Amino acid sequence: MTLKPLLGTPLKRFLRDYKRIHPVSVELAAVLQSVEYPANVGSIFRLADAAALTELVLTGITPTPPNPTIEKVGRAKSLRVPWRYEREPSVALAQLKEQGYQLIAIELAEGSVPYHTFTYPEKCCLVVGHEDHGLTKATLAQCEAAVFLPMYGQGLSLNVHVALSVVVYHILHTV
Amino acid sequence: MTLKPLLGTPLKRFLRDYKRIHPVSVELAAVLQSVEYPANVGSIFRLADAAALTELVLTGITPTPPNPTIEKVGRAKSLRVPWRYEREPSVALAQLKEQGYQLIAIELAEGSVPYHTFTYPEKCCLVVGHEDHGLTKATLAQCEAAVFLPMYGQGLSLNVHVALSVVVYHILHTV
Repeated sequence: MTLKPLLGTPLKRFLRDYKRIHPVSVELAAVLQSVEYPANVGSIFRLADAAALTELVLTGITPTPPNPTIEKVGRAKSLRVPWRYEREPSVALAQLKEQGYQLIAIELAEGSVPYHTFTYPEKCCLVVGHEDHGLTKATLAQCEAAVFLPMYGQGLSLNVHVALSVVVYHILHTV
Repeated sequence: MTLKPLLGTPLKRFLRDYKRIHPVSVELAAVLQSVEYPANVGSIFRLADAAALTELVLTGITPTPPNPTIEKVGRAKSLRVPWRYEREPSVALAQLKEQGYQLIAIELAEGSVPYHTFTYPEKCCLVVGHEDHGLTKATLAQCEAAVFLPMYGQGLSLNVHVALSVVVYHILHTV
């Protein structure tokens, strides 16, 4: 078989047909607890659109739209992804828990399990933290579980939007 | 169970113990066919370290280390990840195929299958292309298979380093 590029209308039709036949079967939200860099927030908006997240909640010092870097990196997806700002992460987490979401931290913590071995519920909210400082002790204590990405080299972490993307796509195709 | 942050030496020990018990069982390389932005190349170096890729081959107009953005975004991982530059992607792909790697494009193409449904061999080389133009027709024709990331929103793609990260971590934990 020779592989051939897919462009323009045929590409759009290909993706549209795929998602019609394989709709997303999970309710997946995300809380950003003081993610500091607009480029990461933009990437997460692009991911939120791609993965049809139900909601993105920005908290703490997380920059919010309108912001030129968020819009550029996020391909203007903040105009269509359901999002809101809530200063206190604890308030956002309590609300989401109340709505039936299981709160799952993406963090290396005592009690954290490899992300690919965890059994995710059909309604979960992923919680990610600051680029350098991760999640606070208080946020982590509010979460019901934590997962981490194994690191097979010398580095201790991947970028926050990359880690979130890996876990989101894993959940989309395993739950 | 209360989740607690893991920092400093305990964190390093946690990751070191994990990778000792769960070593990477696949040989995974990647070819960048004219990935243009240094920030994406840097992210891919950080991923290559994290996932213990056997080799990263930069081709065409892909910027190469030393480059301040690649080093910063890549956390200086170009100093430890095995990489080389080869101007012609076709030459790099032929060499890797000769070494026993199956060449798998990450691209929306005629004949492309969802990345999570593909049966990956134990030795594979992922091939990614330019941020806007993707893989050329010639590169795509040289690949033995192509996989794509389903897009469940309005956008037609994720960033190249994000797509590569999702596929790499999927292969690490399924092959």
